[in-house]
Amino acid sequence: MSVIDQDSPRVADRQSMPASGPSAAGDAQPAVTGVTATRDEVLESARRAKVAAAAVALLPRSVKDAALIAMADALLDRRVEILAANAIDVRAAQAAGTPDSLVDRLRLNDSRVEAMAQGLRDLAGLPDPVGTVVRGSVLPNGLQLTQIRVPMGVVAIIYEARPNVTVDAAGIALKAGNAALLRGSASAHESNLALVDILAEAGVGAGLPVDAVQLVPGTDRESVKHLMTARGLVDVIIPRGGAGLIQAVVNGSTVPVIETGVGNCHVYVDASADQAMALAILINSKARRPSVCNAAETLLVHEAIAADFVPAAVAALRQAGVTVHADPAVAGLVGGTEGTDGVDGVVPATAEDFDTEYLSLDIAAAVVPDVDAAIAHINEHGTGHTEAIVTSSIEAARDFVARVDAAAVMVNASTAFTDGGEFGFGAEIGISTQKLHARGPMGLAELTSTKYVVTGTGQVRASS
Amino acid sequence: MSVIDQDSPRVADRQSMPASGPSAAGDAQPAVTGVTATRDEVLESARRAKVAAAAVALLPRSVKDAALIAMADALLDRRVEILAANAIDVRAAQAAGTPDSLVDRLRLNDSRVEAMAQGLRDLAGLPDPVGTVVRGSVLPNGLQLTQIRVPMGVVAIIYEARPNVTVDAAGIALKAGNAALLRGSASAHESNLALVDILAEAGVGAGLPVDAVQLVPGTDRESVKHLMTARGLVDVIIPRGGAGLIQAVVNGSTVPVIETGVGNCHVYVDASADQAMALAILINSKARRPSVCNAAETLLVHEAIAADFVPAAVAALRQAGVTVHADPAVAGLVGGTEGTDGVDGVVPATAEDFDTEYLSLDIAAAVVPDVDAAIAHINEHGTGHTEAIVTSSIEAARDFVARVDAAAVMVNASTAFTDGGEFGFGAEIGISTQKLHARGPMGLAELTSTKYVVTGTGQVRASS
Repeated sequence: MSVIDQDSPRVADRQSMPASGPSAAGDAQPAVTGVTATRDEVLESARRAKVAAAAVALLPRSVKDAALIAMADALLDRRVEILAANAIDVRAAQAAGTPDSLVDRLRLNDSRVEAMAQGLRDLAGLPDPVGTVVRGSVLPNGLQLTQIRVPMGVVAIIYEARPNVTVDAAGIALKAGNAALLRGSASAHESNLALVDILAEAGVGAGLPVDAVQLVPGTDRESVKHLMTARGLVDVIIPRGGAGLIQAVVNGSTVPVIETGVGNCHVYVDASADQAMALAILINSKARRPSVCNAAETLLVHEAIAADFVPAAVAALRQAGVTVHADPAVAGLVGGTEGTDGVDGVVPATAEDFDTEYLSLDIAAAVVPDVDAAIAHINEHGTGHTEAIVTSSIEAARDFVARVDAAAVMVNASTAFTDGGEFGFGAEIGISTQKLHARGPMGLAELTSTKYVVTGTGQVRASS
Repeated sequence: MSVIDQDSPRVADRQSMPASGPSAAGDAQPAVTGVTATRDEVLESARRAKVAAAAVALLPRSVKDAALIAMADALLDRRVEILAANAIDVRAAQAAGTPDSLVDRLRLNDSRVEAMAQGLRDLAGLPDPVGTVVRGSVLPNGLQLTQIRVPMGVVAIIYEARPNVTVDAAGIALKAGNAALLRGSASAHESNLALVDILAEAGVGAGLPVDAVQLVPGTDRESVKHLMTARGLVDVIIPRGGAGLIQAVVNGSTVPVIETGVGNCHVYVDASADQAMALAILINSKARRPSVCNAAETLLVHEAIAADFVPAAVAALRQAGVTVHADPAVAGLVGGTEGTDGVDGVVPATAEDFDTEYLSLDIAAAVVPDVDAAIAHINEHGTGHTEAIVTSSIEAARDFVARVDAAAVMVNASTAFTDGGEFGFGAEIGISTQKLHARGPMGLAELTSTKYVVTGTGQVRASS
């Protein structure tokens, strides 16, 4: 019941990236032309968001849930309007020669609108993180100390083509008591305008402030810059999309950023692995949904079982339609040697292959001498997302878990499980691959901060 | 038993700021001249820290504690060396015409070295945050999910004059399983070199990697820039010092930053306050240690009790040596009207007074019509550090707690309690005034990240 199903937006966000690597310009700014906005306009929007955030923060769960449900109803009631706005975006994209696969992601239809509405209803069913006591105690001097969850404030989300992110992100931000500042792509601008108008109007009807959900003015690059430097007005920026977008935000932002989602994930098959289990985990990790960030991009095999496992793995990968970018050892084991002269579907790996997030039916494969080498390879080439080991050795599992530096480490399980829905968080706004604040799937709690409340009876501190 | 006693370093860090506001140049770079370092040198240092961090992360508590105690012993054993190096810094500062108060903060003596050693011993006595299970469950498919605390990695601390921060910060970072990259000021460079040499050597003797504690090469401004842009090598930067230093780091860093310590704290005395309690809290908040970040800088008084309370408060503040920067209402109540023509020790408040972190025996004072106005004033002028209300009204307390946007909110208690030691955290590395990752006193847990460990028996995810 993941509200933002990790898979869907990831497909949207990532398929625009060429398999050979991210394109900063393409990722960050699907359209250079677009609606321009001045710095003052962007800051004014952020200022109104800050005022709205103070009000949203105080709303009880009942009002927030009623607003989410009113928004869901409004999306269905006004779907004709949504689809008409979306048709403008779709026509413009087609006129610009946008590939069909991209146009398809931009396109809304009845079932997609229904899915967005259902996502909001699901959010209404989740517990409210605000007010949760994180820790508390009575201090020796009688002061009562509690650390409670409070909303983050103004949450800005910068994202790519798919209009459903507009609704999903707004819903999650609101449920956690925040105001949402949304910055979608120029290609979805008409759709996003319609969606935000509907969400805001329905929200106001249910008791939300009018500025609780806003589309950031402008679709040009400058407006993103203004947003990224609105420190003091915006509390956190979450970029959702390809590596280029994320890097641009990380490098340009003075507002705190949470990095999400670039996943160069590995499956390491240890000497002691149950090979049937390893095959199932490998194929599931790679081929279940190749375009999502938790998909495996590299297979590492312990040399002790390489002669047995590699041929079986390559055959299974080939059957799943996966091209194997093989290091010399892997190539040698399957009779492939040199590029197109080798085995069908097996090509020699270049150095770049091991740093590539393919997001496609491709996998790099190498033989490693031991678990140490696997860990070193992963810590050098991985992106800190999800790493898996298949092993029967308690020592190898312990080593791998302790030493691999990633948001999630899987022991005898598919990388595909790194997902807020699968982890039982109910909803997620992305997978953080950084170490500060949130790491791994970010649910509602990760969109909150905390506050210490200290209640006394006149205590003063000794002069020490 | 706060290891970094918030008060001490704050005094050091802050007294270099002019009362009228922060000086970016003075704060960030106490000396423009100094040892230069190339970008490669700084990055090489960060790279070695990253390698060391991977090893420190795996050390059991026993080794870390033994290292902390060995370091404490070494500081005492080699105090002659420390004091000799320090004497060079002190002489240079004196030759440069540095004011005595600043020289005093730079100066080490036997008791200061002993205090640094004791701080390390206290840290050894604290529980290890690493490996703590934050949450865990068995998922419906049988996967065992645990979120565990892991070290942050490489923690960089940029700080000002006082050499004791070198030892305190290194100790806290290490206890939480991190490598420490320390960037002190040019004025303390000889002292810091000696201290780090002693810490590193003692650490190695006890089983730490040699690069677990390093002084960042260079004392020039460029070396700070290199450090702030070493993303991927440095996991977090914590600037400790005045507003100028913190702003420079926040604006220039691509490495995640945790803002600390600027505190424009308020004491609001509500209509229903017990006035004797309010007086005690006011005087303690303001005058206990005026130079620390949790000291009160503004008094707000509800108009319903202003006629009674203001004259008493001003008299008590005057008795404590505090100059009152009074708004017209406060001035009128104490017979003061116009600047030096008014009452002794009461001067008219300018607009800037209400945005000033005096860190001295000064306080701004104003009368407000109600709790709403107090909250609005605080949210406009405060820095999100600590805000206090004195009240007998449960409604006023609830409103104030819910709506004031700050790391800590005190009800009927002094602002001076915002401190890791007072909160029972044992040690702190600073007071975060931002909302991401850590807010309020930062103890050992705040110097960790988390990792999800998912253990299965071959689970793969359904296709859906």
